[in-house]
Amino acid sequence: MTAIDLNSDLGESYGAWRMGDDEAMLCIVSSANVACGFHAGDPAGILKTVKAAAERGVSIGAHVSYPDRVGFGRRDIDVTSPELVADVVYQIGALKGIAAAAGTQVRYVKPHGALYNRIATDAKQGAAVIEAVKAVDPSLVLMGLANAPILDLAGKAGLDVVAEAFADRAYTPEGHLVSRREPGAVLHDPAAIAQRMLRLAKDGTIEAIDGSVIRIDAKSICVHGDSPDAVAIAREIRRTFEAEGIAIRSFLAPSAA
Amino acid sequence: MTAIDLNSDLGESYGAWRMGDDEAMLCIVSSANVACGFHAGDPAGILKTVKAAAERGVSIGAHVSYPDRVGFGRRDIDVTSPELVADVVYQIGALKGIAAAAGTQVRYVKPHGALYNRIATDAKQGAAVIEAVKAVDPSLVLMGLANAPILDLAGKAGLDVVAEAFADRAYTPEGHLVSRREPGAVLHDPAAIAQRMLRLAKDGTIEAIDGSVIRIDAKSICVHGDSPDAVAIAREIRRTFEAEGIAIRSFLAPSAA
Amino acid sequence: MTAIDLNSDLGESYGAWRMGDDEAMLCIVSSANVACGFHAGDPAGILKTVKAAAERGVSIGAHVSYPDRVGFGRRDIDVTSPELVADVVYQIGALKGIAAAAGTQVRYVKPHGALYNRIATDAKQGAAVIEAVKAVDPSLVLMGLANAPILDLAGKAGLDVVAEAFADRAYTPEGHLVSRREPGAVLHDPAAIAQRMLRLAKDGTIEAIDGSVIRIDAKSICVHGDSPDAVAIAREIRRTFEAEGIAIRSFLAPSAA
Amino acid sequence: MTAIDLNSDLGESYGAWRMGDDEAMLCIVSSANVACGFHAGDPAGILKTVKAAAERGVSIGAHVSYPDRVGFGRRDIDVTSPELVADVVYQIGALKGIAAAAGTQVRYVKPHGALYNRIATDAKQGAAVIEAVKAVDPSLVLMGLANAPILDLAGKAGLDVVAEAFADRAYTPEGHLVSRREPGAVLHDPAAIAQRMLRLAKDGTIEAIDGSVIRIDAKSICVHGDSPDAVAIAREIRRTFEAEGIAIRSFLAPSAA
Repeated sequence: MTAIDLNSDLGESYGAWRMGDDEAMLCIVSSANVACGFHAGDPAGILKTVKAAAERGVSIGAHVSYPDRVGFGRRDIDVTSPELVADVVYQIGALKGIAAAAGTQVRYVKPHGALYNRIATDAKQGAAVIEAVKAVDPSLVLMGLANAPILDLAGKAGLDVVAEAFADRAYTPEGHLVSRREPGAVLHDPAAIAQRMLRLAKDGTIEAIDGSVIRIDAKSICVHGDSPDAVAIAREIRRTFEAEGIAIRSFLAPSAA
Repeated sequence: MTAIDLNSDLGESYGAWRMGDDEAMLCIVSSANVACGFHAGDPAGILKTVKAAAERGVSIGAHVSYPDRVGFGRRDIDVTSPELVADVVYQIGALKGIAAAAGTQVRYVKPHGALYNRIATDAKQGAAVIEAVKAVDPSLVLMGLANAPILDLAGKAGLDVVAEAFADRAYTPEGHLVSRREPGAVLHDPAAIAQRMLRLAKDGTIEAIDGSVIRIDAKSICVHGDSPDAVAIAREIRRTFEAEGIAIRSFLAPSAA
Repeated sequence: MTAIDLNSDLGESYGAWRMGDDEAMLCIVSSANVACGFHAGDPAGILKTVKAAAERGVSIGAHVSYPDRVGFGRRDIDVTSPELVADVVYQIGALKGIAAAAGTQVRYVKPHGALYNRIATDAKQGAAVIEAVKAVDPSLVLMGLANAPILDLAGKAGLDVVAEAFADRAYTPEGHLVSRREPGAVLHDPAAIAQRMLRLAKDGTIEAIDGSVIRIDAKSICVHGDSPDAVAIAREIRRTFEAEGIAIRSFLAPSAA
Repeated sequence: MTAIDLNSDLGESYGAWRMGDDEAMLCIVSSANVACGFHAGDPAGILKTVKAAAERGVSIGAHVSYPDRVGFGRRDIDVTSPELVADVVYQIGALKGIAAAAGTQVRYVKPHGALYNRIATDAKQGAAVIEAVKAVDPSLVLMGLANAPILDLAGKAGLDVVAEAFADRAYTPEGHLVSRREPGAVLHDPAAIAQRMLRLAKDGTIEAIDGSVIRIDAKSICVHGDSPDAVAIAREIRRTFEAEGIAIRSFLAPSAA
């Protein structure tokens, strides 16, 4: 592997409230999961982030969510399928409009928070997200959790998919994310995280929380944008990769294939 | 004139709340100003209305608004220009996404409520709306109040524009709408309204509230969608026009030119 | 039994959108479950309904909900306990403020929609609601589903409770509501409903969907406010009861005990 | 003068978004203007701030706003009087509920942002705010801009009022705040600000932006909570005052009279 994609959640400020350091992250990552207004992001802030991403050649993804701003999209909601299809279509469309105004395009879709976790395994809500993406623009790639059933579902439905791993999260021996409620679920040491991701990129393996070694086949690595360490971790990963001759490049770039 | 456009505000239900009779109006009008979620409309409801409009060959316009659901977009808000540009881009984009999912397209933009009234004469907010439309899709037509400065501004900025008259509103001798706070501002008799609009379509004139005759050069007639009489008024206008050999046809249709 | 309480969901309009016929229902019921702004109700509309209820001597309850206006509070949301406690406190407080401004008081709390169903059996969310009610005003009565564990929990925690039955809903042999997704879950015939409720008031029994007879010990009967038949059903119940010498009176009235 | 009140805007975080350092400010100020959910503040966050204020003996005020979260209540909105009355009642009630749950009380009302500025001179909206405060709890004190007509209006209507000065803002020779759009409108140097406020507390005078000396009769000093320097400025004012034997004490405390 000579290149890998780094993605981060951006555009998550809202009105007067700041979140994350979009400017700094856009100098490090190759893909920006941009909030679409349902969990975070107001139009003016989203437009600013999308313009900045376009200037730096960072790929833009629609970070679609349940409609839950006060809960930051982190709470499971029992939406019906027609509601979910339309909510996802609306958000992708809104971001496509913003991207057009910024002279660029939306290239992929990554569900956010509770929706991301839910569709990883919930076939009904997963099917609604897939239907929405296909309905609004079937050329969009769906980004999802490596090894999760949603990627197979989407692939069978005709969507291009990209699997991602989480840089700062511990994994179970079964290859799932350790719940944030468990001790040790979130990693903090930039150097250790970078080495972990290097191994993932080179060997396709990662050490699970019990010490066992598991396979994670990921084309993209997610570094979170909203934690205090986020920029430091992202920088260290990029530095480590580049020192090993691995470029940080969008999964959409021809040479990243 | 052998054809004229009839437009109406649709998609204005919200979640469990109904407003207007979209199904009935879509059998009468040729253009649907569809709410984009800021003053009315939830994604699932908007999608339903857009699908129904597409099935009937009704042209779809983005009915963009200030962000004011509880005030139904009827309250003036001192938004900044960057906020307004991004809000309008976001709404147009969202509706374009919905339209794509329904197999159709957004063809024009009509600002709603307080924003509509404000930009009729406020050059700063008008410029922001024009900038937004051009940024997201310069092929979109801007619909505005006949004789209002905004149409000249938009035309000079390179946008196609279409002027509209209001079927159920009284006009001042200067050609402005009589404020809703004044007696006689809103007309209710379907037959009288239809005759008034017939004169407008044939002669380009209308009788102002003081009895004087004024010129209104309009390519579209707005019939409101949310009043109890709305469907009856719209039906009577259509019946009257067709009896006189004037077709109801989108201003976008070649033969309406 | 010489009196029983009739309650209905009111104040559920929102801004320009109407729902239900509050004026008509307030002439029939003895208790008004008033929306608090999270699933329905804007402050001006809520104030109007509360004033009208006060004028007619109808008791006012806080109809608290998950924060989900677009879903009308009908979708389950995985809120945390601190969020739920604070959301319920906030809503009760807001309605108490409105009630004070209308010269009256909030007397009870009835959770709405998905929250109502969830806490009927979910002890964790139920405990949060109980904690909230006690924290803001321990003299408030909690209204809940007859036979549901939440009423025991609340009683043990020191709250006064009142059990209610649903006039227009079918019951399972176990005394639960038949899910709205099942055929026959919702009843429509006013006369049949009234007779059913008369039996409930007189004998404390109801016929379940399978024909078996079950005990329902209820001090209040809920008639929904948002269906087209709502007013007709409520009127018929009241007429039937009064013809049998049973008064419609708030469960808070001394003589209703 | 042996004591003066220091007030600050608190509780302005929203969901996952932080704003200001409430913990630090609550160790410095004597009055907390707590957001009520319309421009900022979610119930759980507001409850946390109110509890912390109660623990430190800081007086609690309702920081009521136009309904404009995305604009942080800083944009003028043409609300009608009935809307404004009900919006203010609702917010005060909600905060009173939160305060009751925290074992404390709301003592005063301070409108926020655009509403604050508007009612300083707009008698119609000012009357609506006064009506709301009186309707929900006439014992609440209205805090407003020193020298602004709203304080006279409120006083004549029977409300207790308290005038405030702004620590970090420049004044015109007429005693108004210099608009934030003008150069020099916002002051940043903690030591200079503290000296300025000391003079105000001792002599009742302040130097206007043109060097002239004006009278400002204020019982409270506002230090903003959301700027980076806020805590440093507030600390320096408190330190300076205490060094001069002037206590920081709520305007409600008997000895502050």
